[in-house]
Amino acid sequence: MKYGSKVLACLVDVFSHLPGIGEKSAQRIALYLLESGQGDIDTLISALTDLKSKVGHCSICFNYTEEDPCMFCRDERRNRKIICVVEEPKDILTIEHSGGYHGLYHVLGGVLSPLDGIGEADLHIQPLLDRIDDSIREIILALNPTMEGEMTASHLGEMLQSKGIRVTRIARGIPFGGSLEFNDMVTIAKALEGRMEMKSSDS
Amino acid sequence: MKYGSKVLACLVDVFSHLPGIGEKSAQRIALYLLESGQGDIDTLISALTDLKSKVGHCSICFNYTEEDPCMFCRDERRNRKIICVVEEPKDILTIEHSGGYHGLYHVLGGVLSPLDGIGEADLHIQPLLDRIDDSIREIILALNPTMEGEMTASHLGEMLQSKGIRVTRIARGIPFGGSLEFNDMVTIAKALEGRMEMKSSDS
Repeated sequence: MKYGSKVLACLVDVFSHLPGIGEKSAQRIALYLLESGQGDIDTLISALTDLKSKVGHCSICFNYTEEDPCMFCRDERRNRKIICVVEEPKDILTIEHSGGYHGLYHVLGGVLSPLDGIGEADLHIQPLLDRIDDSIREIILALNPTMEGEMTASHLGEMLQSKGIRVTRIARGIPFGGSLEFNDMVTIAKALEGRMEMKSSDS
Repeated sequence: MKYGSKVLACLVDVFSHLPGIGEKSAQRIALYLLESGQGDIDTLISALTDLKSKVGHCSICFNYTEEDPCMFCRDERRNRKIICVVEEPKDILTIEHSGGYHGLYHVLGGVLSPLDGIGEADLHIQPLLDRIDDSIREIILALNPTMEGEMTASHLGEMLQSKGIRVTRIARGIPFGGSLEFNDMVTIAKALEGRMEMKSSDS
C-alpha cells in the first residue's frame, strides 16, 4: 500500500534483492528512474537484455565474454608466457584494477571442497593443464587465502610442478596501510615467513 | 579493457550512474546478475518495462500510479477530510512509512523558487484549490524546511486560509533520538517556539 503503485513496489522489491542494496536505496533508485524519464530506463533495459543474450564464457580462460576467445586471450600485447589462476571472473577485475599484471588468466570456477562435493572434475583444471605448452614460463596461483583456497593451491601446485613448470603464489602478508596490531596471527606468521631482503633503493 | 566484456562494462557503467551506487557496487550487481542466471535478469527487465509503460500520475493527487485515481485517492478507509501536501511523491513514502497518517495526499511537484523561475503555475497548486470542498476539514503542509519550502508553505497557507480552511504544518523541532548539542540554532529556536504543554500521561 505504501507505494500507491504496485509496479513501483515490485521494482523496489526486485532492486532491494540485489547485493548491497537495501530498501531505502532501492526506493531512491526506482524513483530516480521514474523521474529521469524513458532514456535511462531504456538504457538499463537494453544493457540487461544484452547481458542475458550475449555474455558467455571464454572457451580458453573461462572469463565472461561476448566474443570467444575473450579480449585477454586475444590480446597480443599481453605477456602470453604467464597465466594467473583465479577462482572467479570477479577476481580478474580486482587484479586488472591493481594494474600490476599484464599476463593471461585462467578462471577455475571455484575451489576444491570435498565437504561440498566439489572435486577436480567440477573445476576447470583439465582445461588449464591442456593450455600449458612450451611457451608458458610461469603459473601464478591467485586463489583466496581460505582453507579451501590453500588446499586447492597446494593440489594444483603439485600437478603443475610435476609437469616441470614454474608455479608461484601471490604474497600473503600485512595489507598496505594496515597495522600489525590489527592482523591475525596467521597473517603475521605468513608475513614473517615471506619476508624479503631490503634493497638499498627501498624506502 | 578491465572487464574483458563490453556488455558487462556497459551494464556496470549504467548501474554506477544510479543514485547511491558506486563502481564497486555496480560491479557486484552486474556479476551477481550474470551468475544468478536468466530468472533474475528477466524479472528486472519486466519490472523496468512495466515502470516505463504503466506508471503515470494520479489526476487528483499527482502521486505515481498505474491506475487513475491512485490507491490513496480511491481508498474509502482513509480519512478523506484531511489532505497532506508534500513536495514530491517520495515524501509520501516517508510519511506512510511512519504510520502516523491516514488521510489523503497532494503532491505539489516542487516548491516556489523565483530564482529558478518556478512560479505558481509550475506547481500543482490550482488542482489543490480545486480539490477543496466542504468535506475537507484540514490541510497539513509537510514541505521540507528549506528556504523555498518555508516560503511556499507561507504562500499556500495564506491562499488556503483565505478560503476559510484550517491549515497546519508539521512540527519542527529536535529529531527523536537527537541531542540538543548537535542541532543548529534555527532548529533549537523552532523547537522552543513550538513547545507543547506536558500532559500527565507523557513520560
